[in-house]
Amino acid sequence: MSDPDTSSTAPAAHGSTLLEDFATLSAFGATPVGGVDRQAATPADGEQRAWLHQWLTDRGFEVHYDGVGNQFGLFTVTPGAPYVLSGSHLDSQPLGGRYDGAYGVLASAHAAHRAVQRWNASDETPRYNVAVVNWFNEEGCRFKPSMMGSAVFTGKLPARTALTTTDPAGTTVETALRAIGTIGDYAGPEVASYAEIHIEQGRDLENAGTTIGLVDSTWAARKYQVVVRGEQSHTGSTIMADRRDALLGASLLVVAVRELAEQSTDTPLHTSVSEMTIEPNSPVVVAREVRMHVDLRSPDEALLDAAAKKLAESIPGVEERASVTIEQVQTHGWGVAPFPAAGVKLAAQAAEELGLSHQTMMTIAGHDSVNMKDVAPSIMLFVPSIEGISHNEGEFTNDQDISAGTDLLTEVVGRLMSGALDGAR
Amino acid sequence: MSDPDTSSTAPAAHGSTLLEDFATLSAFGATPVGGVDRQAATPADGEQRAWLHQWLTDRGFEVHYDGVGNQFGLFTVTPGAPYVLSGSHLDSQPLGGRYDGAYGVLASAHAAHRAVQRWNASDETPRYNVAVVNWFNEEGCRFKPSMMGSAVFTGKLPARTALTTTDPAGTTVETALRAIGTIGDYAGPEVASYAEIHIEQGRDLENAGTTIGLVDSTWAARKYQVVVRGEQSHTGSTIMADRRDALLGASLLVVAVRELAEQSTDTPLHTSVSEMTIEPNSPVVVAREVRMHVDLRSPDEALLDAAAKKLAESIPGVEERASVTIEQVQTHGWGVAPFPAAGVKLAAQAAEELGLSHQTMMTIAGHDSVNMKDVAPSIMLFVPSIEGISHNEGEFTNDQDISAGTDLLTEVVGRLMSGALDGAR
Repeated sequence: MSDPDTSSTAPAAHGSTLLEDFATLSAFGATPVGGVDRQAATPADGEQRAWLHQWLTDRGFEVHYDGVGNQFGLFTVTPGAPYVLSGSHLDSQPLGGRYDGAYGVLASAHAAHRAVQRWNASDETPRYNVAVVNWFNEEGCRFKPSMMGSAVFTGKLPARTALTTTDPAGTTVETALRAIGTIGDYAGPEVASYAEIHIEQGRDLENAGTTIGLVDSTWAARKYQVVVRGEQSHTGSTIMADRRDALLGASLLVVAVRELAEQSTDTPLHTSVSEMTIEPNSPVVVAREVRMHVDLRSPDEALLDAAAKKLAESIPGVEERASVTIEQVQTHGWGVAPFPAAGVKLAAQAAEELGLSHQTMMTIAGHDSVNMKDVAPSIMLFVPSIEGISHNEGEFTNDQDISAGTDLLTEVVGRLMSGALDGAR
Repeated sequence: MSDPDTSSTAPAAHGSTLLEDFATLSAFGATPVGGVDRQAATPADGEQRAWLHQWLTDRGFEVHYDGVGNQFGLFTVTPGAPYVLSGSHLDSQPLGGRYDGAYGVLASAHAAHRAVQRWNASDETPRYNVAVVNWFNEEGCRFKPSMMGSAVFTGKLPARTALTTTDPAGTTVETALRAIGTIGDYAGPEVASYAEIHIEQGRDLENAGTTIGLVDSTWAARKYQVVVRGEQSHTGSTIMADRRDALLGASLLVVAVRELAEQSTDTPLHTSVSEMTIEPNSPVVVAREVRMHVDLRSPDEALLDAAAKKLAESIPGVEERASVTIEQVQTHGWGVAPFPAAGVKLAAQAAEELGLSHQTMMTIAGHDSVNMKDVAPSIMLFVPSIEGISHNEGEFTNDQDISAGTDLLTEVVGRLMSGALDGAR
């Protein structure tokens, strides 16, 4: 077993180390203060995809694109055998951090490459081949919903629905993908198992001084589209009693959503409204309509259900106070769902052998692995995020953790290639 | 004195009546449900300006544009003499009504034309010439602030500041005006007095069954630009205690602003927030910044001052609850200010002679006359708005009131041309 630090900083076969490659990757869509802005299927996303394509091709991977722009790099050792798939996403939030997603894709590329080298150096043949994936549009900021590419791949979202989704400027996913040239007709590999590594985006690992998080289940989440309807009128002259103010209604709801979290003192409940579309959004016209997105998450499904009920019950009061009507539709959601215990155990043993501290934890954020775990035995790993800062240009993870996580992923991918998780779900 | 109804519906010299012309004008930028969308210096604004230009030229007016796109139509009876100016604005809100502003410009054109005809038919020569004005960008939705053209004309806003103001797409006023071709170097007429007629945009006249409102003063207004600053983070995984949520801060302020009005039960206080710019406005990123516009209005300046103070005092609590910082700057405002009593009396007498019911009232909305009254004796007239609906496609004023208002404006303009308001302020 190699030493984690030296294996990560040593040059790879083609002369670039993980950290050098991460610096190169971080330059695509770089912002002046150290973040990145490379939303799905933008030119910056196209450039980083082209770079990854070349990186993989240089190391003997075959690159293919499926019909919704998922980018696969396949290394076939045993023709006809299924693939261990490892990946994450390269797309970012606007003014996002350089680690979220991108780290997982690059770590997967290095891990797959190293695992192949190790198998080649051994006298055994792995049961499975290995493939790297860069899922399309995990972030969901330019095109909704988030986790789009893996949702289509796992049959949770029809490809046609994804392709016809438009961004705020009216551009469809299909048009945007064709513009950057990374759309194809590849059906995708047969997946034996899936692995993903990601920054934690919370501060539990940092607080505990632990290097590796082993995700054993997801928090539950409920996402809602809310439309508040009022009526346009003059902000100066309309008497208060006549106003049907959609922005007041929306604001009362934002406060009500926060109060759900404030009232939940024993078990965590994360509640958010972070996006609004206001019509007509004029300084002198009472808003006629506000469309907004409400996000509720908790490790306790019963608590989440109770919060959703409380939110629904608060709506009539808001409707009355602002003289508006409110329509709320759940658009997306998932329950508390386990990752296979055998995978957690496999990763824990590997971490143990590498001398990496580790702890099991839940994932609060959604990840492509949350989709993948429903179709293949999946392992989800975390490395620490400093102060939990994420979706922010100040996102940061130490080089040592970057390297340690990749070393562990290399071990995990290697063991998965040997069939270590066969039959687990 | 002609009968109000027949004079208004009778064909004008060039074959179109006021109501026919109003129907023609309402077709520019018409929306499917009876409103208009012709924001300042858009193509629809350009088309209606070209139409007015032709209308005025056909009737012997000389049309000139000043350096910020104010459109003047001059009819010179006595070369070298100052002008009685009458007008309003043709620009509208997005999805606005067809009366707001446009009625006043068209009524002024008809009134000036008729007044000239009457003077021509008499054996007297008026002391003053007459001019019609279509002020640029009264609405302030595409380019801020509102009442821009009259603010520049009256020296309250530097022309350079107005011309370099940009719309949300980054287009400057100057570029937009050049695109529609209605910008010039005319310095503007010497103004002896000013008249404006407008829909009330409230329901006092309708409730009282009165045809004409004689504006004797303005409500006071204070307008603020507020910036709420938080920090981007992940809406799912960031623990609630770590969030610095600018949209929560902004929403708490919207509610606080409404509460100011709710607490003012004796004297009216109108409070509004109707526009927000949210960054990054992503469904999965806690907002880092919200910029918003707060509008407070009251007929009682002391009450307005107290409300402004209460609002300022509420800010530290909002900053603490949402972990944000808030910056509030007053951008614009006016006090309770009278229109000259002699002008109110002149208009009351004219209404009396025409058999039109009338009452004095304050204007809550800002109008170009609010700027003009500070530089010339000014008269402001209102006609009823059904249900007070305004800045809304459903805005409506009866044809009879449209005609009656124009008849009164004709009388007022005629009397102003004779110098009836000389010396009044």
